[in-house]
Amino acid sequence: MTVSPLDALETPAVVVDLAIARANVARFQAHADAAGLAARPHIKTHKLPQLARLQIEQGAVGITCQKVSEAEAMVAGDPSIRDVLITYNIVGAAKVARLRALAGRVRVAVVADSESVVSGLSAGFADAAEPLDVLVECDTGGQRCGVASPEAARDLARRIAASPGLVFEGLMTYPAAGKAGEAAEFLRAAKALIEAEGMTVARVTSGGSPDIWQARTDGVLTEYRPGTYVYNDRSLVARGVATLDDCALTVLATVVSVPTSNRAIIDAGSKVLTSDLLGLTGHGAVLGRPDLAIDQLSEEHGRVVSDGPIGLAVGDRLRIVPNHVCVVTNMVDAVHVKLEDGRIESWPVAARGKVV
Amino acid sequence: MTVSPLDALETPAVVVDLAIARANVARFQAHADAAGLAARPHIKTHKLPQLARLQIEQGAVGITCQKVSEAEAMVAGDPSIRDVLITYNIVGAAKVARLRALAGRVRVAVVADSESVVSGLSAGFADAAEPLDVLVECDTGGQRCGVASPEAARDLARRIAASPGLVFEGLMTYPAAGKAGEAAEFLRAAKALIEAEGMTVARVTSGGSPDIWQARTDGVLTEYRPGTYVYNDRSLVARGVATLDDCALTVLATVVSVPTSNRAIIDAGSKVLTSDLLGLTGHGAVLGRPDLAIDQLSEEHGRVVSDGPIGLAVGDRLRIVPNHVCVVTNMVDAVHVKLEDGRIESWPVAARGKVV
Repeated sequence: MTVSPLDALETPAVVVDLAIARANVARFQAHADAAGLAARPHIKTHKLPQLARLQIEQGAVGITCQKVSEAEAMVAGDPSIRDVLITYNIVGAAKVARLRALAGRVRVAVVADSESVVSGLSAGFADAAEPLDVLVECDTGGQRCGVASPEAARDLARRIAASPGLVFEGLMTYPAAGKAGEAAEFLRAAKALIEAEGMTVARVTSGGSPDIWQARTDGVLTEYRPGTYVYNDRSLVARGVATLDDCALTVLATVVSVPTSNRAIIDAGSKVLTSDLLGLTGHGAVLGRPDLAIDQLSEEHGRVVSDGPIGLAVGDRLRIVPNHVCVVTNMVDAVHVKLEDGRIESWPVAARGKVV
Repeated sequence: MTVSPLDALETPAVVVDLAIARANVARFQAHADAAGLAARPHIKTHKLPQLARLQIEQGAVGITCQKVSEAEAMVAGDPSIRDVLITYNIVGAAKVARLRALAGRVRVAVVADSESVVSGLSAGFADAAEPLDVLVECDTGGQRCGVASPEAARDLARRIAASPGLVFEGLMTYPAAGKAGEAAEFLRAAKALIEAEGMTVARVTSGGSPDIWQARTDGVLTEYRPGTYVYNDRSLVARGVATLDDCALTVLATVVSVPTSNRAIIDAGSKVLTSDLLGLTGHGAVLGRPDLAIDQLSEEHGRVVSDGPIGLAVGDRLRIVPNHVCVVTNMVDAVHVKLEDGRIESWPVAARGKVV
């Protein structure tokens, strides 16, 4: 039998295949280049400055982060990270002050979807040496954050442009999956209304890996922010966006019990695989064993079941593609990265747990 | 308005009210004392050496951990932790070696449910100065790990007793909720079979917070291992085990958007509240606002909805009792502990992420 360097890892372990991740990044960058879209990957999936650098080296214009602390960790992690979009309403003077400190080091832009948020940003940046670029977040169907109409987008753009310390830069949305058409319609209308006021809409940015291969300008987008595509996961495989062979991140687990002929227990539970289902049944795909289902997780146990004899013994190792990869990287202090030369390195997940 | 020390915390923040936690521990300790059961709390809920010390000071005989790395972090964290039960099959020479190192520092016992696991433990402890106490894990209905019958428990007890470096110490189960009666029946039968072989069953241990107030010896149990009871959570409130006033841990979140009259977005998503549902609908209880539901989480957004006008503004803060508290403490590097004098301290979650 071939001895794999994976055999030396203590389990459960989160393993990243760098060659697959690189290929995933290259494939999307080529798509974005062909579509005339700037690529600005969301680092919430990997949380690794090293992979952000790889994305930038392949052509990304910068990165996307969700929280200020996440952006701080990424910028501190690699000097190639010089351009950050934070797609989140930053609320509260303390967070705005951290945003300003960050904006003193690298190019930072941020979103807002209300006058309250704009006022807070303006209060923090009114006396800054450089104004802050602010995009209006638009709710194009996702029903999360965002202004509800193109008219509201125009009104908030006007408010941003009139606020000391702020510059109106453009429009941002995170569309509902499968709703790119509706998103584009909203954004085109908002852009026209804003331009009718004499303002420039320098950037219109959308995102989401589920619709990654359909991403195009639609006559309005300038930038796309995919996250999960760098690793892919069972949810994207189920949607036909990737194959299991394109999944760069797997969870390595050990069978610790085979209590019955069709049940085994592995040492990876919800503290590694997480409880995220994303509409799927079961908690991950066991590579090479499509007959197995992970039907139940507790914190440290994963229950694996089969219709027929399970064919597993205590000590056997399984590799699992998780349902939702972004949340898995948040569970561990380090991932084990299989380099292209076959060696395995441990990389701290620099932006893990950065929720503030 | 009163200024609370909570107002100074950056959100999202996980907040522990020490007075409530202390009362929860005292209430169960009194129950265990009255029932004639030793209390051995599972630290998976708090992951804090400080709270393990509090539990031991109030009468706990020691602690329960699930993984070796978790036990290592706890033992390193407080000298009062001198007795650890690891309720998990420890598989692989490297983990058994760590277990042995730990057993050289404090009293350690562990479970096994197969000859494979027993063989591995024996190989690691055969030449140890002190033998390792091993309990047989019994599947009394939970369908996770555990031997399937009292006869299988007897056979494995015999095997442990015959293994160099190991001592058979007793029986362990994690029963299905509401199945304490079935568990006791299994354990009584197994104990009788083992004693019929001339072996002593020194410890019979069960656990689980859902049935905590029904915990009794049932003619066989000597020890009980509750975990969640120290904090309580929405799942235990829903089961009638605790009230919201007994919930010691809350997630403090800030409203970052109010896009429509009946929708608000908070800065706590699945990276704090987690996706665990435990059979519930929604992702936590908003204290003081029973009219609100958290109907959707993404990683950094929680969506709060109401039937009528939501009555929230950007910057408002909400306190949320999570569905499942044990997994929430695993998401953050530190919890903010409200001491009994009102001050707030930040305590690192020492055993967070210890899955190996």
